[in-house]
Amino acid sequence: MEAARLLWNHPEARITSVTGRSLAGQRLGDAFPHLAVYGDMRISAELEGEVDVVMSALPTAESAIACAPYVRAGVKVIDIAADFRLKTPEAFELWFSKPHPAPELLPEAVYGLPELNREAIAKARLVANPGCYPAASILALAPAVAAGLVGDQIIVDAKSGISGAGRGSGGSFGYSEVNEDVSAYKIANHNHQPEIAQELGSLRDAPPPKVTFVPHLVPMTRGIHATCYAPLLRTVSQAEVREIYRSFYEGAAFTRVTDAPPHTKHTLGNNMCLVHPVVDERNGMLVAVGVLDNLVKGAAGQAIENMNLMFGIDQTAGLNLAAVYP
Amino acid sequence: MEAARLLWNHPEARITSVTGRSLAGQRLGDAFPHLAVYGDMRISAELEGEVDVVMSALPTAESAIACAPYVRAGVKVIDIAADFRLKTPEAFELWFSKPHPAPELLPEAVYGLPELNREAIAKARLVANPGCYPAASILALAPAVAAGLVGDQIIVDAKSGISGAGRGSGGSFGYSEVNEDVSAYKIANHNHQPEIAQELGSLRDAPPPKVTFVPHLVPMTRGIHATCYAPLLRTVSQAEVREIYRSFYEGAAFTRVTDAPPHTKHTLGNNMCLVHPVVDERNGMLVAVGVLDNLVKGAAGQAIENMNLMFGIDQTAGLNLAAVYP
Amino acid sequence: MEAARLLWNHPEARITSVTGRSLAGQRLGDAFPHLAVYGDMRISAELEGEVDVVMSALPTAESAIACAPYVRAGVKVIDIAADFRLKTPEAFELWFSKPHPAPELLPEAVYGLPELNREAIAKARLVANPGCYPAASILALAPAVAAGLVGDQIIVDAKSGISGAGRGSGGSFGYSEVNEDVSAYKIANHNHQPEIAQELGSLRDAPPPKVTFVPHLVPMTRGIHATCYAPLLRTVSQAEVREIYRSFYEGAAFTRVTDAPPHTKHTLGNNMCLVHPVVDERNGMLVAVGVLDNLVKGAAGQAIENMNLMFGIDQTAGLNLAAVYP
Amino acid sequence: MEAARLLWNHPEARITSVTGRSLAGQRLGDAFPHLAVYGDMRISAELEGEVDVVMSALPTAESAIACAPYVRAGVKVIDIAADFRLKTPEAFELWFSKPHPAPELLPEAVYGLPELNREAIAKARLVANPGCYPAASILALAPAVAAGLVGDQIIVDAKSGISGAGRGSGGSFGYSEVNEDVSAYKIANHNHQPEIAQELGSLRDAPPPKVTFVPHLVPMTRGIHATCYAPLLRTVSQAEVREIYRSFYEGAAFTRVTDAPPHTKHTLGNNMCLVHPVVDERNGMLVAVGVLDNLVKGAAGQAIENMNLMFGIDQTAGLNLAAVYP
Repeated sequence: MEAARLLWNHPEARITSVTGRSLAGQRLGDAFPHLAVYGDMRISAELEGEVDVVMSALPTAESAIACAPYVRAGVKVIDIAADFRLKTPEAFELWFSKPHPAPELLPEAVYGLPELNREAIAKARLVANPGCYPAASILALAPAVAAGLVGDQIIVDAKSGISGAGRGSGGSFGYSEVNEDVSAYKIANHNHQPEIAQELGSLRDAPPPKVTFVPHLVPMTRGIHATCYAPLLRTVSQAEVREIYRSFYEGAAFTRVTDAPPHTKHTLGNNMCLVHPVVDERNGMLVAVGVLDNLVKGAAGQAIENMNLMFGIDQTAGLNLAAVYP
Repeated sequence: MEAARLLWNHPEARITSVTGRSLAGQRLGDAFPHLAVYGDMRISAELEGEVDVVMSALPTAESAIACAPYVRAGVKVIDIAADFRLKTPEAFELWFSKPHPAPELLPEAVYGLPELNREAIAKARLVANPGCYPAASILALAPAVAAGLVGDQIIVDAKSGISGAGRGSGGSFGYSEVNEDVSAYKIANHNHQPEIAQELGSLRDAPPPKVTFVPHLVPMTRGIHATCYAPLLRTVSQAEVREIYRSFYEGAAFTRVTDAPPHTKHTLGNNMCLVHPVVDERNGMLVAVGVLDNLVKGAAGQAIENMNLMFGIDQTAGLNLAAVYP
Repeated sequence: MEAARLLWNHPEARITSVTGRSLAGQRLGDAFPHLAVYGDMRISAELEGEVDVVMSALPTAESAIACAPYVRAGVKVIDIAADFRLKTPEAFELWFSKPHPAPELLPEAVYGLPELNREAIAKARLVANPGCYPAASILALAPAVAAGLVGDQIIVDAKSGISGAGRGSGGSFGYSEVNEDVSAYKIANHNHQPEIAQELGSLRDAPPPKVTFVPHLVPMTRGIHATCYAPLLRTVSQAEVREIYRSFYEGAAFTRVTDAPPHTKHTLGNNMCLVHPVVDERNGMLVAVGVLDNLVKGAAGQAIENMNLMFGIDQTAGLNLAAVYP
Repeated sequence: MEAARLLWNHPEARITSVTGRSLAGQRLGDAFPHLAVYGDMRISAELEGEVDVVMSALPTAESAIACAPYVRAGVKVIDIAADFRLKTPEAFELWFSKPHPAPELLPEAVYGLPELNREAIAKARLVANPGCYPAASILALAPAVAAGLVGDQIIVDAKSGISGAGRGSGGSFGYSEVNEDVSAYKIANHNHQPEIAQELGSLRDAPPPKVTFVPHLVPMTRGIHATCYAPLLRTVSQAEVREIYRSFYEGAAFTRVTDAPPHTKHTLGNNMCLVHPVVDERNGMLVAVGVLDNLVKGAAGQAIENMNLMFGIDQTAGLNLAAVYP
């Protein structure tokens, strides 16, 4: 749904087929009135016609099953589900309690975070689009981990708007219950935990750090705020850390280091990730904040950014937007 | 602020100068982090350089004072304030309790609602951009009034998000007080009441109808929902009314008649107005709903649409966007 | 659920049995953690033990079927469902599309709005608790109708928080879709329309007025704001109308006439209805606002108030609360 | 304001004087319509008449200046401001950048958290009411710290509704900006950090632990969710930790250990704190959640609970309420 919103204004890409199960047969603009711009385009049960790239956001395991034939047929695939993020079939099975449906594709899947893997994404035929929480968390921590600034006991406390929970999630996300409420869920038991640890581990010559990850739901529709805590291995000034971060993200299309604590709303509807590191000198702790729109940089926008790279298009095509504020 | 967001993606317009009083000297992207795309552009106290068009959203009367020299100098002006909407200096003084600062410009000011005044806007050098409530209300009622379907005792009950109340509006719009609250204000005493009546009157050969207008604040940021009630002068079927509306808006770039009651959120961030007429047969009453984003079709988007027409650009340039949903 | 919250602090009533279908067997405090004060009390499938009064909020028609045996057995019954509100079986069938299950009880059912029917409620063995919208609307209009001030073409434009839509209402009331959204529903076709008309009609020697009723959902949990429009039959000053209203509600336990437009949040969690009449002199229209908490004065609190009257207890017992603000 | 709401239903306490500066002279029910139950009670500039207990919520330092004469005169005082929480004048000056106005009273001030200091509160004449964040954080961590389960590097990531920010906080807390937004502030630099560390330190024979405290604003009015992370010093099962917590809070009037992650909304409007410990076995980390209503258990309700203890009244008097849900 969000990819369709953004692709409407993409200068070089065009949606040719939209699939959906429960909505098959309906016009896109009837099922989702905000997409009425698409006129008579209909939702079909199966992918129709020839395509240059497939984006899939099917449920876990179903996505790999649906994507595999396209990968094998040489069609570029961006999997927005979690199926190709963890590098080993064992890790997948441990966290999703089922065997991986296409383990032979795992070695070539590239983790689709351009701030870390720009070159590899450009050459990939299968990209694993990052989870929304990991995108914010990894971008908040990457410069410090890569610089060897922080130790192994990392905490990620993340706050998400409700749209991350998906449509049709039923009664638990009813307005009256969610409004005026904050709660944690899957405490230290969410499958984004190993994803964060794996990618942070890839930034240094050492095993992945320990990551305790706790997601929370807050009463808003969009937005993720990841507050990350990592023990500093040496004394470092606020200015030095800021410089390490700025240097790491120099030239990044969609990650910016801010001087003040960023607000999720400063990224509403666009593809930016705002990152803000703070040194807690009293306690020898780095606090690093990352914020983004979970449906854009945390999902559909990231997928389009990856598509742009995979096709050699300007990385910002279709994504060069100011946030919707207030 | 919202015009800057939208103009960032306009293919043929470019902001060359942004003015502001309390923020003068700051970078646009520091004052409003979601506008960081503008890089080093700064806010100045006075308009700088030569421009082809001026958009003003200054306070009442101040706007006319600031705009008048540009109009006289042949620069096209779009006034987003209320200064040039009411046709006579007497009406202005009655509702704003001060004399009009530039009454000689009133005769040439064109009310900037393209669904009614497309041709005149294209030729205007001074456009009075509609108020947010009137835009939704007039578009909801215009087809019925123009067709002579309804009588004179009209009710407009409008619900607005809080962003309509302006920045710096102070304590009354604090989060804790506004959240979980609905209230009416300026009951039957808001200056948008004569604006609605005047424009509806212009659609028929008769004096303006009586309009009782009651605005309400609801706890959301953006969006206006105008629910309009007008007594039917003759028996008419739901199908016939729907057809009258569809026919009236055939070819309209940004107003669409819906089959189901529209949601304000279906227009969040874009320039659409959704209109939905219902015949209450039991009571001989027409209920007509109009919804839009008060900051876009109700203000900045409408201004850009008017600018496009005034310069002979594609009417939808920079505005061809899907809504941000959910 | 809300009755249980309020009855916890009632000095003379005690819940002895709570029924529920899907939750039968669970402890009340496990199913609803905010009711943990009830300790080991469990939800049962059927009413258990002997009771002095039954409150029912079952679905339409099921409620009458469940309540009828208790009424016949001499147990006082307060029906929070809509089954005993409309006075005739024909009206019930017209609006609910099914025959009334216990039409012989309709003549003795008393409409449970103490501001109108205090004496009758005290003597009733079956009370029809008002709908949430009608409670606010009738209280807003009653003084004007009773005084013969207004004519027959009445508009009620009502805005409700989402909790009025009930639990388990499914996907339509998901947080992400409802947040930042206003929409109308059942336009001029809601079964509260005849309820409002019937009760207003009972206030004068004439047929019920025409009432066009349009409900809206606004993004908040609790609260109803009914904005009512009625044509004035004679010239009347703001002061005179205010006095008519104050006089009508003199001595009312839970309805108060306010000087300024009331806010729904001023009644959050308590049993007050705030009423505010305004004369629109320009258009000869009375605008009357009524606000209340739909779950309290619009449902459970009203039921307790009725219970108090039926048992000769202080009318305010258990309900003498300040609103929760902000 | 919140104390007035709760005290209205207190069986043994009565407000005799309400002070306020900007609102002096107004009726309480005019300034705050939800307190209209108080009838003609007026706000005065200075405390009027004789009182048994004073509650103060004045700004930092002003509160101590205002309270000191009452303490010296033998009137019991509950300071809801931060003035008497830190044990030494040096700590006060370090965090508030001004000298303490009444350092001689610090030794006798009792930190007003009955779960830790019940006996001392009962005998105190000056109680320092806990900060809203510390109340939730300390109650979440106390059993683990007291049992020697956890080490010294503690993280407290807290999320608060906006009402904690106080009235008249101005533009930063406007609805349009706060809605759909999460942000951190005063990262590792909030004066609640030493308060948490000090009180946790008092639970064991060792210096205070290191506490990194980061507060966040989330778009809701009331509620605090403190998510606390502390490294486990030994292997411990989930069941054992749960038992340690239950045992610690056995008999506590207002703190309860929950089986599932608690929701802030389960405490809306009442004096409960819900605590939920989780063992992250993979990482040797304890995650402990504490939730409460910042205006009740985090401020006014806690003050009333302290008052009850100071006067030998039932600890729950006036506070035995179910939460307002949904």
